[in-house]
This record gives sequence, structure tokens and C-alpha cells, in this order.
Amino acid sequence: MSQSASDFTSRLVFNEQGLIPVIVQQVDTREVLMMAWMNAESVALTLETAAATYWSRSRNELWVKGATSGNAQRVISLSYDCDSDALLMVVDQTGAACHTGDRTCFDAVTVHPEVIL
Amino acid sequence: MSQSASDFTSRLVFNEQGLIPVIVQQVDTREVLMMAWMNAESVALTLETAAATYWSRSRNELWVKGATSGNAQRVISLSYDCDSDALLMVVDQTGAACHTGDRTCFDAVTVHPEVIL
Repeated sequence: MSQSASDFTSRLVFNEQGLIPVIVQQVDTREVLMMAWMNAESVALTLETAAATYWSRSRNELWVKGATSGNAQRVISLSYDCDSDALLMVVDQTGAACHTGDRTCFDAVTVHPEVIL
Repeated sequence: MSQSASDFTSRLVFNEQGLIPVIVQQVDTREVLMMAWMNAESVALTLETAAATYWSRSRNELWVKGATSGNAQRVISLSYDCDSDALLMVVDQTGAACHTGDRTCFDAVTVHPEVIL
């Protein structure tokens, strides 16, 4: 891992499970594609390979997005927030981001407030 | 709370602290402004009032964005993801989203992968 990638990872604040949430945004359309989780190793692998790599909380294993589905994410940039406890990752998504086949994981159910301000 | 707001909230999967992460996106520019947390009460209040209302994990209290700073968020829509355990909220932000005065909470530190795919 390069010094800059190592410095970046060392500044992150992981939760009690050693994880940090990552918001994934499509580079051109700026759609929010999904939210997932990374541990320190998956952050490092993502920066080394430019292939989005997460931690699966259900399978307890590293997970390279698209490794089985082909719907890979090429990583453009990774930013942490003002508290260093959340990540924003800009990617170029191949195909659908969601395992349901939807373009994004937020395509299914939307509500609006009851009042208009 | 209306039936649709009540139905929406009842389908959410909260974590062991009773919280769900919410990604906040600006309606026109589609910038990701911040990530925060909501409990069931703050989801309900957000849908009732159209004023973004979060749960502060550091202060252990409900927090109406902009109540003290004036940098309020008018809520346009709220969506849950395919696992029902993350929210995407589209807002119209007044002023800066970040307490640092930056437009977004992700403006400070960005890195890029070491390889170009």
C-alpha cells in the first residue's frame, strides 16, 4: 500500500465491529447506487486495485463487487467525511448496482413528506 | 402520522442501537451532502414536518438540522434500500451542510486508487 493510501486508511474511524459505512455514487449521473460496509483491509484493497471491495456482514467475508455477477465497480475516488466515520466512493458501475437487478438499491420504495414547505 | 408514513417506518430495519443510516443528497446538484443516523421517531418527524430530523449519537437526542445554524434541509423524498437497512433522503439544503462550513461533509480529504483500470 502506498504512503497516501496507508495514511488515508489510518485516519478512518471504524465502529465497534471494525467497519465503516460507504456511500457509493455513480460518477457521471451522480446517482447514489448503494450503501455498504468496509473494514480496513477492504479499504486498502479497494485503493490498491481500483475494484470496489466490501465487507459482507451476512457472509463475514471480503466481497469484490461484481466478482460473481459481473456488475463491477471501477473506483474513481474515495473521500472520508468531517468525522472520519463515513466514506463516499465515486465509481463507474457496470450494469445494475443492486442484486435485485435494479440500477440502484434505492429504486424500490420512496415516500414524500406530508407537508410542502 | 399518515398510513403511508407509518407503513414506511414499520418496514425499516434498525440496528441494535435502534438506528438506521441516512444518506443525504442535494436535489438539484445531486451532491452527497452528509451521512447521519435516524431512529424511528426521527423518521416519523421528518415525514410529518419535511424538516430533516436526525438522532445525534454524541448528544443522545433528536436534532433538527439547521435549528441552531439556520442551515436547514427541506425534505423532498425518502427511500429505503433493498435490505431496508439504509435510507436515501433527497433534500434542498440551505447554506452549508457541514458544521465546518463546507458545502458537504465529504469536501476535505479524497484519494484515488493507485492503478487506473
